Formats: sequence, structure tokens, C-alpha cells
Amino acid sequence: MGENDNSEIIEHHVDEEMEKKGTRSRTASSSFPGSVTPSDREGHSGTQSSHRLLAYSDALISIIATVMILPVAHTKLQDNDEELRQSVQLLLSTKIAVYLMTFLIVTVAWAAHIRLFQVIVRIDDCLALLNLACMMLITFLPYTFSLMATFPENILGILLFCGCVMVMGVIQSVIVVYAFSRPFLLNEQIQISENLTVYKHHILKVIMRVPLMCFLASIFSFILFQISYVLLAIVIFLPYISRSLKWCRSKAIGQVEETPDSILFYTFLPEEPLSKDRVEAFSDGVYAIVATLLILDICEDNVPDPTVVQKQFGGSLIAALQDYGPEYLAYFGSFATVGLLWFVHHSLFLHVTKATRFMSMLNTFSLAFVGGLPLAYQLTHEFPRNSRNELEAIQISCVIIFFAGIFQLAIWVVALYNEQETLHPYVRYGGREHVFMLAKLSLYPCVALGTFFLTCILSKFSASIFHLMEITVPFAFLVLRLLVRGGLAMLRLTFCPDRPDQGSVVEEEDDETRVPFNALVT
Amino acid sequence: MGENDNSEIIEHHVDEEMEKKGTRSRTASSSFPGSVTPSDREGHSGTQSSHRLLAYSDALISIIATVMILPVAHTKLQDNDEELRQSVQLLLSTKIAVYLMTFLIVTVAWAAHIRLFQVIVRIDDCLALLNLACMMLITFLPYTFSLMATFPENILGILLFCGCVMVMGVIQSVIVVYAFSRPFLLNEQIQISENLTVYKHHILKVIMRVPLMCFLASIFSFILFQISYVLLAIVIFLPYISRSLKWCRSKAIGQVEETPDSILFYTFLPEEPLSKDRVEAFSDGVYAIVATLLILDICEDNVPDPTVVQKQFGGSLIAALQDYGPEYLAYFGSFATVGLLWFVHHSLFLHVTKATRFMSMLNTFSLAFVGGLPLAYQLTHEFPRNSRNELEAIQISCVIIFFAGIFQLAIWVVALYNEQETLHPYVRYGGREHVFMLAKLSLYPCVALGTFFLTCILSKFSASIFHLMEITVPFAFLVLRLLVRGGLAMLRLTFCPDRPDQGSVVEEEDDETRVPFNALVT
Repeated sequence: MGENDNSEIIEHHVDEEMEKKGTRSRTASSSFPGSVTPSDREGHSGTQSSHRLLAYSDALISIIATVMILPVAHTKLQDNDEELRQSVQLLLSTKIAVYLMTFLIVTVAWAAHIRLFQVIVRIDDCLALLNLACMMLITFLPYTFSLMATFPENILGILLFCGCVMVMGVIQSVIVVYAFSRPFLLNEQIQISENLTVYKHHILKVIMRVPLMCFLASIFSFILFQISYVLLAIVIFLPYISRSLKWCRSKAIGQVEETPDSILFYTFLPEEPLSKDRVEAFSDGVYAIVATLLILDICEDNVPDPTVVQKQFGGSLIAALQDYGPEYLAYFGSFATVGLLWFVHHSLFLHVTKATRFMSMLNTFSLAFVGGLPLAYQLTHEFPRNSRNELEAIQISCVIIFFAGIFQLAIWVVALYNEQETLHPYVRYGGREHVFMLAKLSLYPCVALGTFFLTCILSKFSASIFHLMEITVPFAFLVLRLLVRGGLAMLRLTFCPDRPDQGSVVEEEDDETRVPFNALVT
Repeated sequence: MGENDNSEIIEHHVDEEMEKKGTRSRTASSSFPGSVTPSDREGHSGTQSSHRLLAYSDALISIIATVMILPVAHTKLQDNDEELRQSVQLLLSTKIAVYLMTFLIVTVAWAAHIRLFQVIVRIDDCLALLNLACMMLITFLPYTFSLMATFPENILGILLFCGCVMVMGVIQSVIVVYAFSRPFLLNEQIQISENLTVYKHHILKVIMRVPLMCFLASIFSFILFQISYVLLAIVIFLPYISRSLKWCRSKAIGQVEETPDSILFYTFLPEEPLSKDRVEAFSDGVYAIVATLLILDICEDNVPDPTVVQKQFGGSLIAALQDYGPEYLAYFGSFATVGLLWFVHHSLFLHVTKATRFMSMLNTFSLAFVGGLPLAYQLTHEFPRNSRNELEAIQISCVIIFFAGIFQLAIWVVALYNEQETLHPYVRYGGREHVFMLAKLSLYPCVALGTFFLTCILSKFSASIFHLMEITVPFAFLVLRLLVRGGLAMLRLTFCPDRPDQGSVVEEEDDETRVPFNALVT
């Protein structure tokens, strides 16, 4: 552990910043090639860095993606009437489906937004206002989904949804046309390229595909509404379908030649880079809104009415609040879990140097599970002790935590496959933080899995086991570095201490402390 | 309008970035002075830039600050029963008071958080986890406020609040002690200073003042709860009080000598710099959550029940949805207004180079009004047409928009007083964007004021006037640059075209196009 370990990781990040800055200053100095005459820019001198606009868009989109979990939360499950219970469960599953669909669609829209603003790197007032209009339509999408889910046979929901998407497509096309008419707003790589119009047409073609499909869907909805749903499902998987079609064609006919420029943007390849900053900002937004979901409910519903306190509890506020006790516990439990999952995410992305589309997809899956967490926690405290429902709620919580954690781990595993490009040397195979990162990422899945099986065996003590888990995990994170060291030392003592070969991933982890990582770092 | 106007504003921003970067790289290279031995850092090699932690904290705090508006929203006003109506209005005013108090307290906590992390510029896992614990307590504060407001004579609310603040004080002290024991985590200015312990004690003293006052308040609550409230009120204004006391003392006794180091941080002077990035991030969070507040409600409440649609509307979904029509209008209206206020804020802070505490305070006031906006909009559509209540609701909306806008204008005016330090040359007196910025900032206050007086005079057409305002303002922003040019040309034609002297601000604005701004810019 050399003297300059710290400075290395910091300098690495500084290097990154310097790189970014370098790109920006290059962009700035070369953003006015001779071809752009002063008259082009007349009246549009207020070009601005797009950073804050994108941060605001990320905040809006993350809130909207997560918000449809609230109707799920406010559906109360009753135990008494079997028939009523079944209808409520049907309603609940509808709402969960709406939540997941919204999350998926909104993140697809978000990815499209990232792609667009990777091409347009500078904005002016006009683009900012057009973007706001686009945001307004995105935030309205969840409502159209609710309508579709509640009235699946009524075409109004489909029409509203398609209308929103079509207007958004038009606005985005206007943004593209506007930006290409002012090339100093564009990404430098496109700016210096010869075939600006090829780019423009390629991007417009990609953007207009979705509204076109929606237009078809809205027409078909008048004839046979089932076809509309199929068309809408195709919209989501369109890039994948077109990719696989292209692949099939290239296998059948031979390599199809593409223009080299168009490969850079809007490729929809799994390794297409998506802005790491924006993936982080979006995740932060989701984690923040999810962490506070329960306190919203508590603040609104759990302040007892003064008259009720006077009548039912003889004026004793403490007695009245004890009724809500479990909900506070649920709040602190869910806040801690979401906070720690954020912490793991933060630690991971600190060492990620480039985010790809595939990583961002896994991240979305992880976030979708995180969104359901507070409600699962709330359910654990809603049922009487030792009831079957309580056990179920606790096990659902464990499953959700497990999947939220395992998808985070999957991000790292995917990143490891292309570690030279996507990861900081410290967390690559054999890097000095490799084992520690693995421990951080696998702590929650392991604990959740353990708790799940423990509650299966000791179903009587399920609540106690769950609460014990809630309390110990934060402390486990605090002393994780010590635990990892201890574990490694133990392993080294148990097995042969100087085994040289590294066959599998598991074996490699044990060996990391002996790998000459300095060679890797420098 | 020279050829290199665009490149100048961009280069200005690049310069800023370069400065930032410069600071960072300096910090990085000098963050391990010889005094820090390797053993100090053993086990803590994972130091990280604090940027994302702060962004996440900003997101959490902004959500919590805004969330107490929801209970206000869900209080329904009825017209029929006069007595009931009065009790509801009392409840409403209590809830509004809770909202404003929460907003104030949470922003005070947020400012303290900024100050702390201006001293500690780098974090490690331990600090990240401690910060999460701190966040958890901050998010619980609104609930204690609700308790205090609902049961003002019960000491439980006071005790809970004081308990939270005291635990937060302890955690923050632990953070400070921890960070000072690892000086490479600290701000470079403190790191290189000789008297590290002086700093540490000064900061600890400032941090512990608030928990100490809360401790006193919780003790007094057992004796006489009114004193507790007075003490808690003092807590908020403590920095102002201690400042004015110091000022009085210096006037009475003469200049009190302070250690020059301690002036840099935790000064509580109006011109104390607060991180501009964080002011922006916090504002973004508030604007984003406020913009989406109404869609949360709409998604949850405005999807009609299928059985109701079948029975009441004969299965016609469109007829059922027409009932909710005004609420969609309210949603789009409030989203547009909040979005445009964000746009103005964004334009302003693009040209602000340094945010001071006073500017941040004005920003907080503006945001507090923005928070109330969606509800005011919702109210405008809740009452029957042409009723007294509708007029009141519309006028309240105008007042809220006016104040939200006027405080944004005030930020700029305050910045102008120290323009060399706080503003980009373009928007200083005589800068080329000066008039345009003034137009942007004063558009909403002017329109709101105009609408208010128009509705006073033509109270019959209040709703139409209001809707007309909603529709025209976004377009006014789109063509604002043209409008400003036209206005200036008109003014130049009307008055003497070559008046040389510039007496007041108003006159100066008219003259800006003739000021040789190139001399100012370069």
C-alpha cells in the first residue's frame, strides 16, 4: 500500500475532469468554424452549456418514473372478505403493472433524451423552452397509462398516449432541425464532419420512427384495439428488433456497409455510451424520491386529529402516536435501505469511467425494484404479528432487496467484461479495490437471500429476524473494510498462502492483495 | 455585435470550469503534505470527490422542504357551512404556517450542510454513511413540525424536534472531528493553514450552538413551553443575532480583532459565499418536485372507477373525464408557470459567478412562493365560474407568481451591488445582455401585477383573463428577445437618440445598446 495511493485515485478523477474540460474547451474554441457567418448567429448569441437543463430534466423524469408507485401504496388490503380481497388483489396487480410499464416507458423516453442531448451539447433559450414543453408531455404519460390499465377496452387511453408521443416527436424534430440550422450548438464531432445533412436525416429518421408507430397504433385502435397494444409493445423493443433484423440481414446477405459517421450516435448497440453524469443524476433522483416516499405519507396521514386524541386517548398524545409506531419503524427502515443502496450505487459509479446502454438498462431494472421497496416495508408493519400476511410481506421485501442489489452487481459484472474502457483500474480484476467492491455489491443480495431462507425456516421469528437485519446492515457497511480484510486473512490462512494461478473469478478475488496493482494503475 | 460574442460567453464558462478544475488539481496535488504519514491513511484510501453525495443531499432536502405543501393541498374548502368553513380555514392557516416554517428550518439546515461541506471537500465511505444518517433526521423534521402545529401545547413535538436536532449536532460534530483527523479530506485553504485546531474548535463551536439551544429548549419545555418556542425561534436567527451583537460590541468598544483564518468559513456575513452549484441543485430539486406535484394528485385521484363510469355516465369514459377537465388545465398551467420560473432562474444563474448567503436567502423566499403555486392554480379551477372564491383564488395565484418573480429580480439587484464579484460582464450595468435579463426577470412580476389589477376591475372576466395570461406568457418568452429589441428601438425613436448622460438605472437600461460593451467584456 504505497504512499501515493490516495493521490492516484484522486488524480485519476482529476484526469477525467481534465479530459472532459479538454473536450469542452476544444468545443468552445472550434465551435465557430469559418462556415458560420455572423448573420447566422444574430439574435441567438445567448448559447449556454446544457448541464443544468439536463439536470432539471433528469430530476423531472426520475420523479415521474417513480410516482406511479403511490397509487399502489394507497390500495389497502383487507383480510376479512375473500371476494373483495380478490378484486383488490386484481386492482393491485393492475397498478403494479402500470407502475412497471410507466417506469419502462419513461426510462425509454429518458434514454432518447440523453441521445438527443449527446448530439446537441449547447442550448439557447429557444431550445430550453422547447425542452420544457417536451418534459410537460413526458410527465403526462403516466396518467394515460393509468387510463389504459383501468379501461383496457376503451381506446381513449391509447389515443391520449399516442397523441402525447406524436406531439413529443414533433417537438424533438423541431429541436433537431433548429439545432442543425445553428451548427455551433452541436457536438464537435458532428460539427467538423462533412456530411451534416446525413446526420440530420439519420437522427430525424430514428426520432420519427416512434411517433409513426404511434400514429399507426391510434388508427388501428379504431378498428381493433388489440393491434394497437401490440404496436405499442413493438415501439419499446423497436431498437432491439431493428438491430436483430440488421444482424440477420448481414448474416444472410453479407456485411452491410454503413456510413462510418452514423455509427457514433443513435446506434442502439449495447455498448453505445450514455452520459455517465446523466445516469447518475437520474439514479439520484429516483433514490431521493423513493427514500422520501414514506415520509410524505407519514406527514400527511399520521398527525392525529386533536379531537380524536381528546376522546379516544384521554388527551395523551403519546398513546395516540403509539398506534403509528410501526409506520415510523417502516420509514426509518426503508430510508436506511434505500440510502445504503444509493451508497453502493455511488461507490460503484465512482469507479465506472464510461456508462454503456446495457449498463444503464440494468441500472433501470435495479431502480424499478428500489421503487417498490418503501411499500414492501410499509406492508411488513401493516399486518398483525405472526400472521401469514406479515410473513409474505417480509419475504416480498427480501426478494425486492435481493433483485435491487443483484442488478447493481450485474452492472459491475457487465462492466468487467470490457474493463479497459468502462472501469477504473482499482476495481478491475486484480485491482486493489476489487474484493472490497465485490463485498459492497454482494452484501445486500446475500443478506436478503439469507433473511429470506431464515424466515422460511423460522417463520415464527420472521419479524425479529427482519428487524435484526435492518439494524445490523448499516453497521456492516461501516466496518465492511475491516470485515473484508479479516475474511481475506482467514481465507489466506485456510488455503495455501502462495497459490500462484488464478483460474476463476472467485479465486482471483482472494489473490487481489498480492497482485502488483501499481503496475496496473500507472 | 462582434463576431466573437458567442465564443466569449462560452469561453467565460470554460474559464470558470478551468478555475474550478485548477483548484481541484491543486487540491489533489497538495492534498498529501509531508505531515500526513501513510499510517494515517491506512484503511481510508477510498477518498472520493464529494460532488455526487452533495447532489443527492440537495435532492433529498429540496423534496423535504417542499413536501409539507401536500397537507395544505388536501384540505378541502367547503362553501356551505359558515362555522365549518372557519374551522377549516384555521386548519388551513396552521398547515400553511407549518409549510413555511418547515421550508425555513430545512433551508437553514441545508445552509449549514453547505458550510460544512465547503470545509470538507473530499469524503470517504465513513463520511458518506454519517451524512446519510444526518439526512434521515432532516427528513423527519417536517413531521415534528406538524405535531407542534397540531398540538401546540403538548411538549412531545418540541421534544422530538429538539431530539432530532441534538442527534444531528452530534453526528455533524463527529463528521468534523473525523475529517480534521484526516486533513487530506479538508479544503486546501484549511489544510495548508497552521492553526488547524483553531479552525476545528471554531467550527465545532458554531455547530454545537444550535443543539445546545435545543437542549435548553427541551428542558424549558417541562417548565413553560412558551419559552421553548422563543428559544427555537432564536435558533433560526442566531447567526443574525450574534452578528449584530458583535457589530454593537465593535461600535461600543472598538474594533474587535478576529483571527484572519476564521473569517473565511462560518462567518454568516451576507456576502459569505455559498456554493453556486448547490444553490442551483437545490433550486432544481424544488422546481422539479413542485412542477410534478399536481400530476401526482391527478394520477392518484383522477382515474375514474370503472363501475362509476358504467353507472353514472353510461360507459362513456370521455363524459366521465370531462368532470376532471379543469384539473388537467390546472396541471398544464402550473407546470408551464413553474417551468418558466425555472427557466428565468436558470438564465439568471447562468450569469451569476458567485452566490452569496444573502442571494441564497432571497432565492429561498422565491422558492417558498413557488412551492405554493400549484395549489393556488388548483384552487382557481375548483370553484364554480364567476364565484367570489374563484376570483380570490385567481388573485392569490397572481400574488404568489408576483412574489416568486420579484424575489428572483431581487437576487439580480443584490448581485448588481457587487457586480464585479458576482456577475458576468454581460449582465452588469451596461452589459449587452443587461436589458434582456431585466426583461426576462420582470416579465412574470409585471404580468402577474397586470392580471391582478385587471381582475380587480373586470372581475366578471377574471377566469378568461387568467387563462389568456397562461397561454400568452410562454409565447412571450419565446419572442422576448425580439420584443426587447422592438421596445428599445421604440424608446430610441421616441426620445432623443443621442442623449449622453445616464442618471438612473431606468435610463441606463435604455442606453445599453450604445454602451461600448466590448471594452467591458474584454
